[in-house]
Amino acid sequence: MHRRFEEELEELRTKLLQMATLAEASVSNAMAALVEADAATAQRVIDGDREINQFEVEIDSFCIELLARRQPMAGDLRFIASAMKINNDLERIGDHGVNIAERTIELLKEPMIKPLIDLPKLSAIAREMVKNSLDGFVQHDVDLALTVCRRDDEVDHLNNQIIHELVSFMTRDSRVIVRALSLIMISKNLERVADLATNIAEEVIYILEARTIKHHHREEDVHRKEN
Amino acid sequence: MHRRFEEELEELRTKLLQMATLAEASVSNAMAALVEADAATAQRVIDGDREINQFEVEIDSFCIELLARRQPMAGDLRFIASAMKINNDLERIGDHGVNIAERTIELLKEPMIKPLIDLPKLSAIAREMVKNSLDGFVQHDVDLALTVCRRDDEVDHLNNQIIHELVSFMTRDSRVIVRALSLIMISKNLERVADLATNIAEEVIYILEARTIKHHHREEDVHRKEN
Repeated sequence: MHRRFEEELEELRTKLLQMATLAEASVSNAMAALVEADAATAQRVIDGDREINQFEVEIDSFCIELLARRQPMAGDLRFIASAMKINNDLERIGDHGVNIAERTIELLKEPMIKPLIDLPKLSAIAREMVKNSLDGFVQHDVDLALTVCRRDDEVDHLNNQIIHELVSFMTRDSRVIVRALSLIMISKNLERVADLATNIAEEVIYILEARTIKHHHREEDVHRKEN
Repeated sequence: MHRRFEEELEELRTKLLQMATLAEASVSNAMAALVEADAATAQRVIDGDREINQFEVEIDSFCIELLARRQPMAGDLRFIASAMKINNDLERIGDHGVNIAERTIELLKEPMIKPLIDLPKLSAIAREMVKNSLDGFVQHDVDLALTVCRRDDEVDHLNNQIIHELVSFMTRDSRVIVRALSLIMISKNLERVADLATNIAEEVIYILEARTIKHHHREEDVHRKEN
């Protein structure tokens, strides 16, 4: 492989990490805006979506350009194709941050119906899943990617618990229904962020296992040469 | 371009149409199960997701194989990369069908809280958007793809109307809260199907406009030769 191509693949990896940082910040700032009742921060998340969308297009074009110019085979081709998918998933994670920020601006117009404890917890798990899936990607760490996939049940459980509690608030006082519904929607957005992190982790496992298979084939070649 | 490669691109187009048919059927059958109170149909939608997932992997592998074997340039490369994204969006549409089917099975355990009129209407619009985006793709029809993007407001309006009505049901009778919430979630699923159809339509416009630009370049070449 050309040395220049190796540098370009490294550049792609760096760009995806930057994209992940932007997407994760979108969710994290939207949740901070909600918890701290800070509408200005929520508005900044909404305004920041433009940058994330532009960066997605930039990374996508970079991938297409690499495919066209380098005509990569097997492993590198699979890697670039997966990078395009991960890029797309990260953009969607950013969109969920925007959804949460929009709900937050609505919610802040009225008093909060309850202290938020489980939603920030769910947000922390979802964001850690995003981070770990990308770290697994960059550090070629299958085990880290696998830990992301295994947290799915934990997320479902916490999301169900949040919805259950909010439904009981709605049942007791019909005046909080609209606000409780907004919090349920935020919980669903966080659940989707976790789902997208799982998609990314599965993609990472797919690339790394393809690499492993390739690696085993090479070992077989070595054995064949030795015999 | 090799004749065989042309046939392979045609095969990819056909596969995506089949994938779209499966994804659309997932949503359409899930909604039929809800409207006709037919749990067996809902269960078949859930069981059918395996086939959709397998088909997604098959199409994805076919795209990677085409990229590796044909090393396509410019337009064909862009087309195959877009096909991979559309394939992914279609798989997610199938997932929303499954979500609706799962909610339906829960909902059918208790009496329906109201006759369903707007939800089937929203479902019809969302499915038509999926169909039109794919037809735009196959028939190289930018205008058809543009009509899909323009229906976004209509979908948002109908979704808001559905949520507004269900919230008023919840407010009047707390016993229907859980069921109304399930219907709201189904409405959100249908809204997401429409969003994914819009993603596909945008991808189609992107491919076709790249083609147009390429086409203009060719025309310029012709002019240059004539002068």
